[in-house]
Amino acid sequence: MAKTIQFYYDFASPYGYLASTQIVALAAKHGRTVEWKPMLIGVAFKVTGGMPLPNVPLKGDYSRRDMERSARLMGIPLKIPSKFPISSQSPARVIYWLESQGAARQEEATKALYRAYMVDDKDISSPDVTADVAASIGLDRQKVLEVIADPAIKEKLRQETEAAIQRGVFGSPFIFVDDEPFWGCDRLPQVERWLQTGGW
Amino acid sequence: MAKTIQFYYDFASPYGYLASTQIVALAAKHGRTVEWKPMLIGVAFKVTGGMPLPNVPLKGDYSRRDMERSARLMGIPLKIPSKFPISSQSPARVIYWLESQGAARQEEATKALYRAYMVDDKDISSPDVTADVAASIGLDRQKVLEVIADPAIKEKLRQETEAAIQRGVFGSPFIFVDDEPFWGCDRLPQVERWLQTGGW
Repeated sequence: MAKTIQFYYDFASPYGYLASTQIVALAAKHGRTVEWKPMLIGVAFKVTGGMPLPNVPLKGDYSRRDMERSARLMGIPLKIPSKFPISSQSPARVIYWLESQGAARQEEATKALYRAYMVDDKDISSPDVTADVAASIGLDRQKVLEVIADPAIKEKLRQETEAAIQRGVFGSPFIFVDDEPFWGCDRLPQVERWLQTGGW
Repeated sequence: MAKTIQFYYDFASPYGYLASTQIVALAAKHGRTVEWKPMLIGVAFKVTGGMPLPNVPLKGDYSRRDMERSARLMGIPLKIPSKFPISSQSPARVIYWLESQGAARQEEATKALYRAYMVDDKDISSPDVTADVAASIGLDRQKVLEVIADPAIKEKLRQETEAAIQRGVFGSPFIFVDDEPFWGCDRLPQVERWLQTGGW
């Protein structure tokens, strides 16, 4: 079985979205698969004193510009959503529920949900909207609504978020290659180099 | 006369140091020269609510690792100083005093001062240490001490720092190419691309 790399992301994160479009091909080039690890970055902010980028004076305006500029350079569609950021429990729970169906299904759902929010401006914080997107890739809409409200899945997301923070995750995206941590879409070239060389 | 790009940096910033070793060659490849704009990033933190990286839980540890890892990948010597960060008024004032002697002299002094702090672990927050480093590149040690204490030079650094923040600078390094803002050593590839293409 192929070794994995772990990809942590918040569905409210444009940089997480950008990286999500690259990470599978990048991993595959080096014989790896991706573990999909959605989390709630707001919980990490309570540890680091961070806050959502749009709310930070100066940095908020710059970040918006940088997100759009980076997306254009990468050739990836991105429209900063009208409601930004959002709470991302609904889509994150769906991804953990899909764990038993395999990484390819989690990838498909991640990409559909990110695209709904980051390209089509759909507010996936709403369980109904997340269920609509899930239905569009062939999942059972009613089942998805039950999953989003399921105490066991809620607990799973809580635990995964806590475990991520314990591991040092404080931003999105956050990638581990054999326990080496990389923060940010702009570290993908270093991730690739690390996969090639085993480190430097 | 060649068009300039503006390079804003804090002498306490390892990422500013890393970028300072690359920016002149990068600009020159595209027919540009560099304006050296040291500033006090702590003043911007009062606007953004930011704080020195080493003090931020999780992010502090990661950043240290990332700084060292990025330096190794770039082939640039870096030893995170034992006193880190520091107040960087002394070296910053010297750079503004050198403005009348031209950008090449400012570059030489910037590189010598960064190297003293980021490689040789010399605490350049001390006027005496900064004066020693300045003397090592042929400046008058006593004159440099007077410059560091000169009210007009102090005021110049205050004004430059305020003007930088007005322009949107909140981190180090921060680079403007024809008013397009780029934050971070990791944006140098985008800076280069912007210089090549005029934007995208």
